[in-house]
Amino acid sequence: MAHIDLGLDETVNPGIRGLLRYRPDTGRPLMELAEVLLRGPSTLGRGERELIAAYVSGLNDCTYCRNSHGAFAAAQLDDKTLVEQVRDDPSGAAVPGKLGALLAIAAATRVSGHDVTPELIAAARDAGASDAEIHDTVLIAAAFSMFNRYVDALGTLAPSDPAPYEAAAPHVVENGYLA
Amino acid sequence: MAHIDLGLDETVNPGIRGLLRYRPDTGRPLMELAEVLLRGPSTLGRGERELIAAYVSGLNDCTYCRNSHGAFAAAQLDDKTLVEQVRDDPSGAAVPGKLGALLAIAAATRVSGHDVTPELIAAARDAGASDAEIHDTVLIAAAFSMFNRYVDALGTLAPSDPAPYEAAAPHVVENGYLA
Repeated sequence: MAHIDLGLDETVNPGIRGLLRYRPDTGRPLMELAEVLLRGPSTLGRGERELIAAYVSGLNDCTYCRNSHGAFAAAQLDDKTLVEQVRDDPSGAAVPGKLGALLAIAAATRVSGHDVTPELIAAARDAGASDAEIHDTVLIAAAFSMFNRYVDALGTLAPSDPAPYEAAAPHVVENGYLA
Repeated sequence: MAHIDLGLDETVNPGIRGLLRYRPDTGRPLMELAEVLLRGPSTLGRGERELIAAYVSGLNDCTYCRNSHGAFAAAQLDDKTLVEQVRDDPSGAAVPGKLGALLAIAAATRVSGHDVTPELIAAARDAGASDAEIHDTVLIAAAFSMFNRYVDALGTLAPSDPAPYEAAAPHVVENGYLA
């Protein structure tokens, strides 16, 4: 049960869902940010962006966000093995090329903004990343540094069974975060 | 100079200001979140909320956010010494009562959502904090875990001189974050 009284059934509204209903005035800009970052126009695929979110959430040990965005990534990636690769190798080293270099920037951002070095930026550029892709990777990692803390600091419910997350994926893939 | 080409003069648009102009689609929900959290209807004063933001930013060693929100807090707090107390004693222990208990929750949230214990929540309640105040404190600390990383991971300019931050304060106090 959450640390505060959300006034709703958490088994129906686990994780961030209960918080969005508890405080719609903050919930709206939070979901608008998620919609633009994870689903808006970008040269990064929606599955790739969800994978960055799931990766950061896993490193932060946030069960609800890792499982949710892992399911949304798997549903939108051509290469379904990527989610497992990232889950089983938190160093991200298993992912080659541009996506691997962006995951390294995301991992550094998660620790501290000061950990993102010119060398990490240069490696991403060498792998073909654009300035816009580097920007969005940093902001996804920073945003999940927020979402993960929000969900866990308030002690919200996070089912350990993957089934409810997978069941929610088609609705999010189809309708996004503002529906 | 920022790690990416923002296409603008950073001396005129330091810190997050250049990033908001670089990517207005993400800038809008970010500033809407700041406006609701730091200035919207609340039983916590605007100065108190800015102080929580400055406190978290100081712990994250984010010069731009600490100096900005420290100046905005000082401009809106009745007790001007609070900003210095919090800056000079990062444990937050110098601040008594409800605000001190909320700063302790913010400090724990900054480290990890998992660090916010039932004991910290109970101590805030005992000091008179409501559920809504606990919620907003957590979300302010979580949001600045994002803003701090966003600003520093992209290597944006952060003047060390306090003067430009103090000069910006009256405009923000008067017009808010959406102007």
